[in-house]
Amino acid sequence: MSAKPAADPIFAARDQGAAAFALIEELYPICRSITGPGVTATLDIIERFVPLKRTQVPTGTKVFDWEVPREWTIRDAFIKNAAGDRVVDFKKHNLHVVSYAVPLRAKMSRAELEPYLYSIPENPDWIPYRTSYYCESWGFCVSQRQREALGDGPFEVEIDSDLKPGVLTYGEALLKGETAEEVLIYTHICHPSLCNDNLSAIAVACLLAQRLAARTHGLSYRFIFGPVTIGSITWLAMNEARVANIRHGLVLASLGDRGALTYKRSRRGDAEIDRILGFLAETGRVGAIEDFSPYGYDERQFCSPGFNLPVGRLTRTPNARYAEYHTSADDLDFVTSEALGDSLAALETIIAIIELNARYINLAPKCEPRLGPRGIFRNTGGRNPSEFEHAILWVLNQSDGGPDLLSIAAKSKLSFSLIAEAATALAEAGLLARV
Amino acid sequence: MSAKPAADPIFAARDQGAAAFALIEELYPICRSITGPGVTATLDIIERFVPLKRTQVPTGTKVFDWEVPREWTIRDAFIKNAAGDRVVDFKKHNLHVVSYAVPLRAKMSRAELEPYLYSIPENPDWIPYRTSYYCESWGFCVSQRQREALGDGPFEVEIDSDLKPGVLTYGEALLKGETAEEVLIYTHICHPSLCNDNLSAIAVACLLAQRLAARTHGLSYRFIFGPVTIGSITWLAMNEARVANIRHGLVLASLGDRGALTYKRSRRGDAEIDRILGFLAETGRVGAIEDFSPYGYDERQFCSPGFNLPVGRLTRTPNARYAEYHTSADDLDFVTSEALGDSLAALETIIAIIELNARYINLAPKCEPRLGPRGIFRNTGGRNPSEFEHAILWVLNQSDGGPDLLSIAAKSKLSFSLIAEAATALAEAGLLARV
Amino acid sequence: MSAKPAADPIFAARDQGAAAFALIEELYPICRSITGPGVTATLDIIERFVPLKRTQVPTGTKVFDWEVPREWTIRDAFIKNAAGDRVVDFKKHNLHVVSYAVPLRAKMSRAELEPYLYSIPENPDWIPYRTSYYCESWGFCVSQRQREALGDGPFEVEIDSDLKPGVLTYGEALLKGETAEEVLIYTHICHPSLCNDNLSAIAVACLLAQRLAARTHGLSYRFIFGPVTIGSITWLAMNEARVANIRHGLVLASLGDRGALTYKRSRRGDAEIDRILGFLAETGRVGAIEDFSPYGYDERQFCSPGFNLPVGRLTRTPNARYAEYHTSADDLDFVTSEALGDSLAALETIIAIIELNARYINLAPKCEPRLGPRGIFRNTGGRNPSEFEHAILWVLNQSDGGPDLLSIAAKSKLSFSLIAEAATALAEAGLLARV
Repeated sequence: MSAKPAADPIFAARDQGAAAFALIEELYPICRSITGPGVTATLDIIERFVPLKRTQVPTGTKVFDWEVPREWTIRDAFIKNAAGDRVVDFKKHNLHVVSYAVPLRAKMSRAELEPYLYSIPENPDWIPYRTSYYCESWGFCVSQRQREALGDGPFEVEIDSDLKPGVLTYGEALLKGETAEEVLIYTHICHPSLCNDNLSAIAVACLLAQRLAARTHGLSYRFIFGPVTIGSITWLAMNEARVANIRHGLVLASLGDRGALTYKRSRRGDAEIDRILGFLAETGRVGAIEDFSPYGYDERQFCSPGFNLPVGRLTRTPNARYAEYHTSADDLDFVTSEALGDSLAALETIIAIIELNARYINLAPKCEPRLGPRGIFRNTGGRNPSEFEHAILWVLNQSDGGPDLLSIAAKSKLSFSLIAEAATALAEAGLLARV
Repeated sequence: MSAKPAADPIFAARDQGAAAFALIEELYPICRSITGPGVTATLDIIERFVPLKRTQVPTGTKVFDWEVPREWTIRDAFIKNAAGDRVVDFKKHNLHVVSYAVPLRAKMSRAELEPYLYSIPENPDWIPYRTSYYCESWGFCVSQRQREALGDGPFEVEIDSDLKPGVLTYGEALLKGETAEEVLIYTHICHPSLCNDNLSAIAVACLLAQRLAARTHGLSYRFIFGPVTIGSITWLAMNEARVANIRHGLVLASLGDRGALTYKRSRRGDAEIDRILGFLAETGRVGAIEDFSPYGYDERQFCSPGFNLPVGRLTRTPNARYAEYHTSADDLDFVTSEALGDSLAALETIIAIIELNARYINLAPKCEPRLGPRGIFRNTGGRNPSEFEHAILWVLNQSDGGPDLLSIAAKSKLSFSLIAEAATALAEAGLLARV
Repeated sequence: MSAKPAADPIFAARDQGAAAFALIEELYPICRSITGPGVTATLDIIERFVPLKRTQVPTGTKVFDWEVPREWTIRDAFIKNAAGDRVVDFKKHNLHVVSYAVPLRAKMSRAELEPYLYSIPENPDWIPYRTSYYCESWGFCVSQRQREALGDGPFEVEIDSDLKPGVLTYGEALLKGETAEEVLIYTHICHPSLCNDNLSAIAVACLLAQRLAARTHGLSYRFIFGPVTIGSITWLAMNEARVANIRHGLVLASLGDRGALTYKRSRRGDAEIDRILGFLAETGRVGAIEDFSPYGYDERQFCSPGFNLPVGRLTRTPNARYAEYHTSADDLDFVTSEALGDSLAALETIIAIIELNARYINLAPKCEPRLGPRGIFRNTGGRNPSEFEHAILWVLNQSDGGPDLLSIAAKSKLSFSLIAEAATALAEAGLLARV
């Protein structure tokens, strides 16, 4: 993006991968769910990076077609075999208990237990991740090997959980800029010990928020950390009047795996954020662009037809496209500092374009203005112009209030930073006015 | 299209190929032309499948730039050589006489006869098909071998025909649906003993009309059986006020050869019927899609600039793209039961989409509605949704009154029937209203 | 384009390549610049082909953001070595002196001279072309071999030039047609002894103007011969009220090299001239089409955002894409009679389309009109139509006032001349009216 890598926030961001990884290590053991103490513990750690406003919404509050669910607390859960050994033990891995499982204490045979067991035959060492949100249920997730070794029972089965009225909590940080127009960044924080989905995005969002809080910016940036689906639904229900301010938005998820960056377009398909990421894909910075589809994370809510906000989604490998997805194999080995640093640097690049992109008007639109006397062009004629001089000609020629700098960069096949630099030089020379 | 093949009209239609073939065998010997007793005999047979209203338009009636021609009756035609042998004999093949030939009784030398002979040097056993509509003329179509063996004459040449004031006749069947909006299906019936062009389409249209008459449907279906060009011109002239009701239309021709189904777009190019066939081509059900061109069959009239109706054309191999076209080689060996059954099944598929396609409005457009409690979604979270659940999400997300189910199917890459099923389930749950 | 090559101006134009080459030979020795006697001498020669109106604009006249520069006269320039030999001599090649160099008489060492020398290390025998327009400067262009053999000096350096108030001169020829709508053809005449850039275009424009002046045409044609950049800026400043008449425009340059014809679109991208050249590229007549970019010749001014005229650019190999560009190697060997003839013929083709292209209305738009009785169609039915009959059907079907003949030719994949011929036949038959 820039000729001065040392001072460049994008360049510097790449080095923050290790810090992001360390944060993932710290968050990994916590057993999160859509409500309950795991959420609170996670927000406490996030708050070290950026001040958070926490919103607590009571159980039963109507949020559009939904209502806020009860608060879930899990203390212990196990299956003991006939010998009294904990053959499945929540204390060893918090994926073992189905998230939101109702309390239970029972003796049962193997046949009675069987319908409540989840495993992955094709990956016999991995524990799956299952939830029972929005229905009264329970279950245990086990590796296929555990399941095969369980024996016939009878088993002592216990889930020491609470599921009772309480609150749903989300945290948000509004980093005010020069304008009230907002960039919304939503990150789900409800998944338990799964590193890519979604500790990776939590870590990257924390570092990005910390960096933005430390500098000035034109737009306001709103970071929201909340549970998946019900979190964004609740936020939208509480902030319906505020959404008109959202000029760009990104849902962040799965930013730590070794795959290429993948952007999923907003439902609009041609919002400015879609064009920015499209440009980055064309120039090779982002690996893949996908059309909007109504399956995924919280973009589903922001892009529901009643809102249709300009919110896309940035991931590396998208959900459900890797075997480790929603299993215990999405662990600390599955994410890398390099990938985390690259994701953070890509976000800094996106923000740089968001901040600089604008429409301009050429104030001397009839024929080309003289550039030599204004110090913008070299004077010796007959030679080929430099890339910067090409950028100057492009910005002057296209700036009729229609195409923005991003369009000009795409059309000219010059870098966005060169086009932005040319616009700045021309504006300083009085030849260009920002629309 | 459906999960229940036994009850599925599309599936069942495929088995009707043999019935269509039998009908072709029955129609084959009749010498049809644009007017005259061959037309009447053909309509008599069609009427066994579907009740017809016949319209008789007198010779000389002005129909736009044209006038209805005289009625042609052919009884006999031959060329006798010096030995008195019928070396060319209408009784052996009704293609031997140029269609609409004026009466003639003459003696002539080989040199005098020569300009009135038509043959195909590159296919020496085939008899060509030629007409002299709209000009007073006569001629004989012969195989190249016949021509070469004719000898020097003198010849006795006789055409026992009438060309005198009478009527042009077309038959139509209007199968009323719940609405007055019509699907127009036009089939030309003027070609003599040519199986693919167009006994194949007559047979398929008869079976389709018979099937539609036996069940309820939303739209009205109008089948017209008339002569090519002057038939559709006359119908349009007689029904100009009625064309506003035509929502979709298809000209059917050449539906029995072994080639792939080929759809030719309406002049509009983006009419709903064009989008439906485009979808079927994308999903492999139809082999090829072609842009409109003003050469072909009666779509030329429906798509003339003064009408510009949403009428496309369905054929297998299009006219003039196979050597047998308009020759005696377009015989009973050239068409197959399989192709006829496949054409009929494709038409049932098209009608299924026509009937089900609609725009819907999501009645809970802000965020996703809860689907589990409404029995539309399974409850256990964390797993990947089923294809049906994907279809539900797509229909909910896209239904803002803009895209119809066909667009949603195309965008989601899910089958149209799955999307239609999802729309039905959501409408029953009160989440969707048809626009 | 036409069936009658002998009478066809396009066909005949191709033979004019030798005449164009002879004109280049005559113009080659003259030392042109943006002002001064070289321009006048060049216009004197052009005037032999087409009567010119000359406009003289005094030095200092404001033209938009610029002002008309001083007039430059060069009489002699040399570098003498210590032995008194002219080791660099303007009399031997007029590229040796930097164009617009200020007068100078000095003794200097090799080190003092060095910054004022220009050469091309990678092509050691070629002399580069450099200018010092719009800044007070001087310099010598030499071959790399000359530079290496110069010795240490001291040198006697002299530039016997004037740079003083005078005039900028351009010539124009307005060939009036039936309408005031104009086709603008701009050719820069300021380059010294460089054959492709731009004596080739001057020669082609002269011959084209001569041919057009000798015949009638519908549109008016304005040929402008002026210096690059400041010439078109000055013309636009003097004729601002007139630009509304410009319906099509072409900047001509580099029309003599062995490369393929290359068209650069106007800034609009979809102007009629862009569509015409796009059509010619699709049909293989023109080798390449490029999008507009703000680097090149005088199209930069015509396509500045304040004018945005429908002016494209026709070249063979574009500027800066061949090693010989702006060097002494752009000499008489670099251009060929064949290429010049081909360029002229292409321009005649473009003009033929410009003149004939129009929108028509079908006056019998409901169904097809009868063509046989009007003598437009042959009468025997059953055979395939001829190409001309296809053209007739296409023109009738598409002529609803929307698509022009060019669109119909592109859509039908028939030749433009056949489509135009069909339109003429239909208009003569009273079936078509020009919009």
